[in-house]
Amino acid sequence: MSHPLTANVPAPPRRRVAVFDSGVGGLTVLGAIHAALPGVDLHFLGDTARLPYGTKSASTVEKYALQASKKLVESPVDALVVACNTASACAIPALRAAYDFPVLGVIEPGAEAALHATRSGHIGVIGTERTVASGAYPQEIALRDGAARVHSLATPLLVSLAEEGWFDHPATEAALLAYLAPWLTDASTRKIDTLVLGCTHYPVFKPMLRRVLGRLLDRDVALVDSAEPIAAALVAQLGAQPSAGGQVSLLATDAVERFARVGGLFFPVDKAVVELVDL
Amino acid sequence: MSHPLTANVPAPPRRRVAVFDSGVGGLTVLGAIHAALPGVDLHFLGDTARLPYGTKSASTVEKYALQASKKLVESPVDALVVACNTASACAIPALRAAYDFPVLGVIEPGAEAALHATRSGHIGVIGTERTVASGAYPQEIALRDGAARVHSLATPLLVSLAEEGWFDHPATEAALLAYLAPWLTDASTRKIDTLVLGCTHYPVFKPMLRRVLGRLLDRDVALVDSAEPIAAALVAQLGAQPSAGGQVSLLATDAVERFARVGGLFFPVDKAVVELVDL
Repeated sequence: MSHPLTANVPAPPRRRVAVFDSGVGGLTVLGAIHAALPGVDLHFLGDTARLPYGTKSASTVEKYALQASKKLVESPVDALVVACNTASACAIPALRAAYDFPVLGVIEPGAEAALHATRSGHIGVIGTERTVASGAYPQEIALRDGAARVHSLATPLLVSLAEEGWFDHPATEAALLAYLAPWLTDASTRKIDTLVLGCTHYPVFKPMLRRVLGRLLDRDVALVDSAEPIAAALVAQLGAQPSAGGQVSLLATDAVERFARVGGLFFPVDKAVVELVDL
Repeated sequence: MSHPLTANVPAPPRRRVAVFDSGVGGLTVLGAIHAALPGVDLHFLGDTARLPYGTKSASTVEKYALQASKKLVESPVDALVVACNTASACAIPALRAAYDFPVLGVIEPGAEAALHATRSGHIGVIGTERTVASGAYPQEIALRDGAARVHSLATPLLVSLAEEGWFDHPATEAALLAYLAPWLTDASTRKIDTLVLGCTHYPVFKPMLRRVLGRLLDRDVALVDSAEPIAAALVAQLGAQPSAGGQVSLLATDAVERFARVGGLFFPVDKAVVELVDL
């Protein structure tokens, strides 16, 4: 026998979330969202024609983020996730002013997760030049806990190393040692017990970061990336959703072959579904 | 007594050459041209809003090169130098079609210099992903000597390593060893005696490349960069010029502070003279 009380209730339309990044790094965030919300349609755009954002000025990043997200939300969406730390640091106010659906950036959930993890109150942040120069993480952390100390460090090479697939490579180890060694020489930075991975490319380096930081600071350092916190924020935003059936579509503004190849390091990208769009 | 036969002959107007690059790497070419032609005005534009070109598609690189060079030649010039291997590989035909002054790219002089240097006829080329994928060096070399063998290798991390100033750094050495080691395992690539630095960022790595290649291939490898050959080609194009007095102006499409700071690794950039332009 069928269930007459439910059989005629139409299923609610599937929710649709837009996810925006400067390139492929945001696919680590897409993966976390897809795992947390497998019944939600996800529509991802990587602005590969103009990457990287991390070396560009704040006003240029804001302009690019507005242009690229406009394309992504041409069809109605329930939320926009800015899966790029640099764009989150520079463009969230402009994006929130432009749209009436929720716009979620990666900085706020990352700041909250870092404060939740730290015991010493000393938090390290690594990111692109622009993200570090923006001061976005120190600001968001200070808003929540004025006593926390934030130590920021630009580590721009890590994006190229991640895109090369050199997650566990002598060149990456040498780069991390060179970037992080100065933290050893200062009494304040030696107290760091939590590191925010302030760039969506960086989660691939977690095993090596644990090893290098453990050796330098002689303790376990908690590694915070924004992927899971932002997925949790989205779950809170959307409420209960179907447990399967969500479709993932991928757009790139240039070089779809490279997008599929390099993006495959971060998310199971099927080349066939990457669509080229012009802004 | 003055020299009446020459005193009233007005000096010819100083020549003006436009030099275009995706970012700061082309400043190595600017330096070579300025050294060879100190009496010529040089007008440089780095398209820092859209760098790097090396990971983008050929059609996008062509479009960007046309847009950026248009800005650069708004005032009349005697020649345009494309001081970027990727743009030279992708955009020279379109640029030559667009302008009636000479357009010089870095690939042809580099190919000629490599053929001049090699004894074994085995030439290595390193460059960005796009430059290597374009096949521009093998084509230009084959046009001049069908018997030469060209072995190409994409080494994309070197741009980021150069911009970090890590010219002699353990991370750079580890990267070079990883990229070049496969050449050791093949009888043909083991004969390489000449390496084309197919990206204008790479000349800063000459000392380390000599060391690493000497160790891997157990011989001195001639290093060819395009800066001096293209300066010589320009001297041939313009003829005799005044020996001093040339002005250098620098334009960038974004982030002039970073342009000045990173560009200073390649050319003595005075921050005050870097002008921001919008395309």
